[in-house]
Amino acid sequence: MKSPRSISCGGESVAWIGPGLLDQAASRLPSDSGRFLLVSSAGPAVPAERIRCALAGRLLLDLRIDDREESKTLEAVRAIADAALEADVRRDDAFVAVGGGVVSDVVGFAAAVVLRGVAWSAVPTTTGAMADAAIGGKTGVDTPAGKNLLGAFHPPRVVLIDPAALETLPDRDYRAGLVEAFKAAWIADAALSDAAEASAKRLLAREEESLLDLIAGAVRIKAAIVTEDLREGDRRRLLNFGHTLGHAFEAAGGYRALRHGEAVAWGIAGALEISSRRAGLPAADAERIRRMLQRLGPFPEPDRNPGRLEPYLRRDKKSTAQGLAGVLLERVGHARVEPAIPIEEWLGAATGASLKS
Amino acid sequence: MKSPRSISCGGESVAWIGPGLLDQAASRLPSDSGRFLLVSSAGPAVPAERIRCALAGRLLLDLRIDDREESKTLEAVRAIADAALEADVRRDDAFVAVGGGVVSDVVGFAAAVVLRGVAWSAVPTTTGAMADAAIGGKTGVDTPAGKNLLGAFHPPRVVLIDPAALETLPDRDYRAGLVEAFKAAWIADAALSDAAEASAKRLLAREEESLLDLIAGAVRIKAAIVTEDLREGDRRRLLNFGHTLGHAFEAAGGYRALRHGEAVAWGIAGALEISSRRAGLPAADAERIRRMLQRLGPFPEPDRNPGRLEPYLRRDKKSTAQGLAGVLLERVGHARVEPAIPIEEWLGAATGASLKS
Repeated sequence: MKSPRSISCGGESVAWIGPGLLDQAASRLPSDSGRFLLVSSAGPAVPAERIRCALAGRLLLDLRIDDREESKTLEAVRAIADAALEADVRRDDAFVAVGGGVVSDVVGFAAAVVLRGVAWSAVPTTTGAMADAAIGGKTGVDTPAGKNLLGAFHPPRVVLIDPAALETLPDRDYRAGLVEAFKAAWIADAALSDAAEASAKRLLAREEESLLDLIAGAVRIKAAIVTEDLREGDRRRLLNFGHTLGHAFEAAGGYRALRHGEAVAWGIAGALEISSRRAGLPAADAERIRRMLQRLGPFPEPDRNPGRLEPYLRRDKKSTAQGLAGVLLERVGHARVEPAIPIEEWLGAATGASLKS
Repeated sequence: MKSPRSISCGGESVAWIGPGLLDQAASRLPSDSGRFLLVSSAGPAVPAERIRCALAGRLLLDLRIDDREESKTLEAVRAIADAALEADVRRDDAFVAVGGGVVSDVVGFAAAVVLRGVAWSAVPTTTGAMADAAIGGKTGVDTPAGKNLLGAFHPPRVVLIDPAALETLPDRDYRAGLVEAFKAAWIADAALSDAAEASAKRLLAREEESLLDLIAGAVRIKAAIVTEDLREGDRRRLLNFGHTLGHAFEAAGGYRALRHGEAVAWGIAGALEISSRRAGLPAADAERIRRMLQRLGPFPEPDRNPGRLEPYLRRDKKSTAQGLAGVLLERVGHARVEPAIPIEEWLGAATGASLKS
């Protein structure tokens, strides 16, 4: 077995990537006290079971939580915090979040506020969470006013990425999550993008080495960006490529019609339109990306109704009177932030967004 | 009018101290957007009214909240956050908390989590909050499991200390709050302690200059300690002098029988007993402190029942199998942390705690 790769994610934060890590949890996950608070998705139980065994005798808490987007609430944070306090959590204990993005967002936020901050680590069980969530320390919950409106910057000490954690992940989620990994390559690393596109067939067949190469590349890109820009300056915004329309598509579908990664795929398709017009993105580059997204799909059609999308765009945190900032691609591997794109232009791109060649 | 004093509290944080500051809120309180979210105590309305006038036309939100200890909850944070999001708060807006310690604890916590962190400033309206709360950035709320168990480190950008904010403060609260200011002097500054004790009569008569000298001294001490020790290491713990028994007395009285400062006064009396025995505190120093506390009182008698106090001591965050850490005084102006004092010894000190000479 190859030894795992480690990627520094800034500060004390590190990602370990490789096969066999789940069973090494006891030696890989830090806890100053040696005690852990395990919080795992109520859904797929296999990865959590392996972590549970690895940490046997050291678990102060073993809590299962609902991992659907509608459960990403302050009430969920409260429930975790109350259970931890009930178990007499101390400042030198550590949380471990096993699950997808919702689980790490909620557990990371709970870890940020319990006793004003306790360490935590993430064991992602989806491709999306491996490529994107947890790294960088953005934690948070939704409120009736919108997504991720309450939260904290609280980076995990360790992100443990083991392909075995994906074993029971449905194919639709596996593919949707890869969109986030490709996104990282497209905004910042043409060579990674070349390699990943070349190994697309093996990736889709869940071939471990190709998958880990892409995930490690995406983690490295995200880690480099967030290390130089922990709060959300312009560099960090590049990671939002495809997310402006993506969030609107996702919200218009009530967070049920589309997986997050699928909505981002449609958002990227829209951003390609604007990038061709405003940032001189070569047609061949746009075509390459569309073709790759097609192979990751087919994705369900989004709701393109401008009347449905517009309120979500206007309510975006980056919205001003001049329009809404967006991330544009100049060519594969190079993105930039455009500070103000009129809402009408976004709506036009939403209508035109296509994954057909 | 003398120009106000400014004290750097570490990072971007600064305290302004002087008369007339309430009406200068527009120039003293920072907001990157120029917009403010005012959250004030539902109780005494005069200081908030002056801030409201000073910030007229720039208020995105004007919310009044209950400032009793029983309202220091996550639900209160949620209510503030929802109101702010409803008002379309942006990351460059700033909260302003006008009130006592409960208000700054709750508003500071809300500011820490709304949009993952918005700036805030504090305008304390009690002597206790002027001397102690807000500075250092410890924000938080209580849960059924105990006090301040959820929270964040999120220092205010500005603390605006104007004696006019105390105008309607009842004498009992005025005196109880001064205990925190004296505490700061006793642990770290013999000269300040000499000066404040010498001007006790003027202080109790609310003579502005004496009061501001003591408050400024206490702020300077706290700022120096938290600057070198933002999280809670040993230095910061010195500020807990009198708080171990104090918290137990306060809890045993259901947070109603004693003001926080009064409970701390009794806690100091108990800590003097232990300090004499374990840290060689000279009898004359202990006597001086008792005499000063007597002049700030008389304070209502605490519940000294060991059976009532013990559970609170055992549940203390600093409790271990060896006992409970405590802050001891070696002489006026010099304190140190004793890592483990047996619970029985604390209970004995609680029984013996006296403010009589």
